[in-house]
Amino acid sequence: MSKINVTLPDGSLRTYPQGVTAFDVAKSISEGLARNVLAAEVNGEVWDSTRALPETTALKLLTWNDENGKMAFWHSSAHLLAEALEALYKNVKFAIGPPIENGFYYDVDFGEKTFSSDDLPKIEKKMKELARQKNEFVRKEVSKADAIAYFTEKADPYKLEMIDALEDGSITFYTQGNFTDLCRGPHIPHTGTVKAVKLLSVAGAYWRGDENRQQLTRIYGITFPKEKELKEYLIQVEEAKKRDHRKLGKELELFTFSERVGLGLPLWLPKGTMLRERLEQFLRKEQIKRGYDPVVTPHIGHKNLYVTSGHYEKYGEDAFQPIKTPSEDEEFFLKPMNCPHHCEIYKTKPHSYRDLPLRLAEFGTVYRYEQSGELHGLTRVRGFTQDDAHIFCTPEQVKDEFKSVIDLVLYVFKVFGFTEYSAQVSLRDPDNKTKYVGSDENWNLAERQIKEAAEEKGLNTIIEYGEAAFYGPKLDFMVRDAIGRKWQLGTIQVDYNLPERFELEYTGSDNKPHRPVMIHRAPFGSIERFVAILIESTGGNFPLWLSPDQLVVLPISERFNDYAKEIVQKLRQNDIRGTIDERNEKIGRKIRDAEVGKTPYMLLVGEKEVESNMVSVRKKGEGDLGTMSLEDFTKHFISAVDAELAE
Amino acid sequence: MSKINVTLPDGSLRTYPQGVTAFDVAKSISEGLARNVLAAEVNGEVWDSTRALPETTALKLLTWNDENGKMAFWHSSAHLLAEALEALYKNVKFAIGPPIENGFYYDVDFGEKTFSSDDLPKIEKKMKELARQKNEFVRKEVSKADAIAYFTEKADPYKLEMIDALEDGSITFYTQGNFTDLCRGPHIPHTGTVKAVKLLSVAGAYWRGDENRQQLTRIYGITFPKEKELKEYLIQVEEAKKRDHRKLGKELELFTFSERVGLGLPLWLPKGTMLRERLEQFLRKEQIKRGYDPVVTPHIGHKNLYVTSGHYEKYGEDAFQPIKTPSEDEEFFLKPMNCPHHCEIYKTKPHSYRDLPLRLAEFGTVYRYEQSGELHGLTRVRGFTQDDAHIFCTPEQVKDEFKSVIDLVLYVFKVFGFTEYSAQVSLRDPDNKTKYVGSDENWNLAERQIKEAAEEKGLNTIIEYGEAAFYGPKLDFMVRDAIGRKWQLGTIQVDYNLPERFELEYTGSDNKPHRPVMIHRAPFGSIERFVAILIESTGGNFPLWLSPDQLVVLPISERFNDYAKEIVQKLRQNDIRGTIDERNEKIGRKIRDAEVGKTPYMLLVGEKEVESNMVSVRKKGEGDLGTMSLEDFTKHFISAVDAELAE
Repeated sequence: MSKINVTLPDGSLRTYPQGVTAFDVAKSISEGLARNVLAAEVNGEVWDSTRALPETTALKLLTWNDENGKMAFWHSSAHLLAEALEALYKNVKFAIGPPIENGFYYDVDFGEKTFSSDDLPKIEKKMKELARQKNEFVRKEVSKADAIAYFTEKADPYKLEMIDALEDGSITFYTQGNFTDLCRGPHIPHTGTVKAVKLLSVAGAYWRGDENRQQLTRIYGITFPKEKELKEYLIQVEEAKKRDHRKLGKELELFTFSERVGLGLPLWLPKGTMLRERLEQFLRKEQIKRGYDPVVTPHIGHKNLYVTSGHYEKYGEDAFQPIKTPSEDEEFFLKPMNCPHHCEIYKTKPHSYRDLPLRLAEFGTVYRYEQSGELHGLTRVRGFTQDDAHIFCTPEQVKDEFKSVIDLVLYVFKVFGFTEYSAQVSLRDPDNKTKYVGSDENWNLAERQIKEAAEEKGLNTIIEYGEAAFYGPKLDFMVRDAIGRKWQLGTIQVDYNLPERFELEYTGSDNKPHRPVMIHRAPFGSIERFVAILIESTGGNFPLWLSPDQLVVLPISERFNDYAKEIVQKLRQNDIRGTIDERNEKIGRKIRDAEVGKTPYMLLVGEKEVESNMVSVRKKGEGDLGTMSLEDFTKHFISAVDAELAE
Repeated sequence: MSKINVTLPDGSLRTYPQGVTAFDVAKSISEGLARNVLAAEVNGEVWDSTRALPETTALKLLTWNDENGKMAFWHSSAHLLAEALEALYKNVKFAIGPPIENGFYYDVDFGEKTFSSDDLPKIEKKMKELARQKNEFVRKEVSKADAIAYFTEKADPYKLEMIDALEDGSITFYTQGNFTDLCRGPHIPHTGTVKAVKLLSVAGAYWRGDENRQQLTRIYGITFPKEKELKEYLIQVEEAKKRDHRKLGKELELFTFSERVGLGLPLWLPKGTMLRERLEQFLRKEQIKRGYDPVVTPHIGHKNLYVTSGHYEKYGEDAFQPIKTPSEDEEFFLKPMNCPHHCEIYKTKPHSYRDLPLRLAEFGTVYRYEQSGELHGLTRVRGFTQDDAHIFCTPEQVKDEFKSVIDLVLYVFKVFGFTEYSAQVSLRDPDNKTKYVGSDENWNLAERQIKEAAEEKGLNTIIEYGEAAFYGPKLDFMVRDAIGRKWQLGTIQVDYNLPERFELEYTGSDNKPHRPVMIHRAPFGSIERFVAILIESTGGNFPLWLSPDQLVVLPISERFNDYAKEIVQKLRQNDIRGTIDERNEKIGRKIRDAEVGKTPYMLLVGEKEVESNMVSVRKKGEGDLGTMSLEDFTKHFISAVDAELAE
């Protein structure tokens, strides 16, 4: 009897008898690990942990901490929901029940019954009861005929329609307890690990998403291996609602939308504009320090520009349509990106290898049509400003440029308090190299340089093969915000395509023409999206340097309102922004109101302050800082801002 | 015999016998004045100074210093040119010969003769000879029949075609010496005042501008009452050519155009972007100090926005056409101005009279289609960035707001060295009040406030009735540049229309809703046009704070190139921009080359400087400033910039 050779992620090799499962392997390591195994990655595919392993296996045990482990858990929870529904309701039919980003849903046909969210507690109770039975998920390969027979018996038209599209020999059923589903899997070992269940909401959904077909009831839920995790999740959801940037953006008067101006086209109000301009100034300054050259290009481009760039042929009816003019030769497009314009700037003069890298930076506003239903606050808009730059360099300079951009991105993360982040290197699919543009040699060089750059900068990186764009490999960053949500933030992409299409050149040290490499990068992604993330991540409690209102002056009584105005005006000249609480309220009330607000400093002014030409300073979270002159306060303020921006 | 009553511009009334002419009136004041009179404004119409005045005459004597005096002078010079041509060439026929902005031209049919610029000196000589004859311009009213007879005799088809379109009784001839022309006039008294003549160029022109008709020869010329003025003019023309912003913009690498991006759409190169951003930062800072709130709005607007603003119905086929989308309800336009967007921002919340004025400022890029033939460098483009702001205020606040904007405009003039300026107040046509929107009461109030504001600010103002826009009165500034050319720069306009159309409101102290007044203003006009004026006015010798290259580091030998790089990098962190002359040239040569360039500072670095960690500083136009540390140079530099920006 031959043996099963298992290689674990740390590179260690273990040998097991035939028939061994991932669960068995886990058990051979420790009982605790075995209890936590939800599924397994077997030679790159996700499997049930209870399936017998092949002779040669690269094995990764998946737990709750792995995205794929979580998916198996929630997928199994969808089956648990279906089992509970079948136990509670007659003639219930099932369509699809997948795991999603947070939890799972099942689309259900209740027949005559009207279903409402009032029914959810009963179902939750049933799910927990069934979970406690620790029913194993049993995988079974079935013939197409048997599959059809089973669901004909159950009179489930949805499953039958799905089976119809499947090939005989590829069909599997999964059974737990009394419930059997048509399913590709994988699933967790048994229902017992599902300790916490919450059904979140009920919505309508059409079968196959087609509004001409049967309307179904979609039940959303989420489950966890621990009750504590569910509680934390529900608190996070509540917290996220409070931090919704659309809500806070309105409350803080940062931006607005107007139907008359057009959906998805933000109007930045004075306070939001301040915030936005601070962000731009911050990055502009950093970029100038790091050798970038700002440029400005128009928001439209002639059709020929997009014929050259290759975007023209991809223009569809679902985009902003071309802008015609009295001249037939002149047809323009709203620019969907800044790169073609920057290529034209590169072409304005000849370049030598000595001039490279050339780093052109632009806060370029671009326009892309999105369906109105897809729009969402500042994160999904029709016009947004990219903190864009294009680095034109020699193939050999890619590594240094990546390192320098990584430095910038990490500095941005530090300044904005994103302490938890990870990075993904997206490379070519090694088995399908023909679908990419650019030479094999350049790809190999760039991929090596990106990996080295990431490593030398000590990034926590995962490498994904086949995830590169057709035009080049890339490095993307993910950050985790204050309430644990993940956001993609910061991208660095190599591009071999545009330099080719625009026939960009530089003269090498060999005095011959060469093609430069282009690197696209955007630490914020877009100002709009970044502001949304910043609002949601800080809950509107911006760092001092970004606060739209950095201080509020509290006159002890109305008699001191004029002095307060003078203070605000003087500080404004030093670019410190304040408001005045001019209400006819007691000072205690004003202080309390200011404390619940988001304003970092309070300046109290009364008789004593006017006479001595001083202000009494209170800092949010720190309390009384004493009485000082306006110059001293200004110094204190500037050093507080400097500390926030320290590298 | 009744008397002629003449009122002069200073209000004085004089009485003359019948038959008196403007020339006689001048003579009755002084012989010197009489010599300088070129024409006369009689009850608002421009007349020959030799015509008998009507019984009641408001008279203004026109000299070379009056635009209309100059026009009569150049118009007469065109006749002089024709007289010379008729004397020199056989069978020459004349089309039209008007005065233009600088000089005059005549379109001539030379028949078989090929004419070239080689012929010009001979004609110039003839013109001067005829001028010395002091031939009077004699006006004669002729019947249509006589006019036809005269030009049939001369076989001039062009004059005959023109006479054909005229009404009998309205036709006049002018004769000087042996030459008679069909002409409405007015003309100068005699040819003797034309002392300096220069024929500038020869071009082709079609009769009636119609390319299907006869091609004519257009001869351009200019004349002056003094030889010295001609010389100055020709020097100015040469100087203007050298300062052409299109030429300097390319040489200084400030901006470029690309056919692929589209005609009339500037691409701002790194150095131009620096300049542009400095200008924006300068104005932004001043505006924030003066209580403006920056906002940011999209570059497109929904059709409904322009239906509301009233622009939609004026949209013609000669404009950028609408941007269609997959949804029929959604049709967008490139924004041709920022005001409608700002009105929507005003509407986001209710306003009280206490919140006003609200001053919304935006460097808003707008797009307007121009025929490609109309495009000219940065002064006539298809996309440009207005230094726009809209002030929403109560009708009573108009005066203070105008005064404050005048202060800003005058500060701008001071900083940019425009020491000569004038202003024009454009008011309603008092005889035709119905063509304006807004109440009579508000117009009277605003017109009075604007006049008072201009007066209180000590502006040199002319008032033009009937020049107001239909939506409100305005104040425009003109500046004279270093070589004497005039530019319109800075506008402040009242608008009663948009607040009405957008139904803007504020709650007055009476607790009732009121309509605010809107003021449009742009001190620069547009960044593009202002940069063009700045380039042409400074010849590219920008003030220090605006110089794209503020200094050049000159290493004594290549050994010190690294130290030079270090210097440039350190200064860059303080936002001081420099380059390095890394050529392998003697230092004397480097200094000479830098001196002919436009770079304000030279920093010399050699053995001594490296050892002592210093730089040797030379300032353009001032010479050696000695050796100093980088900190001391930075301090010196910053105070030099501060001095340039002092109010």
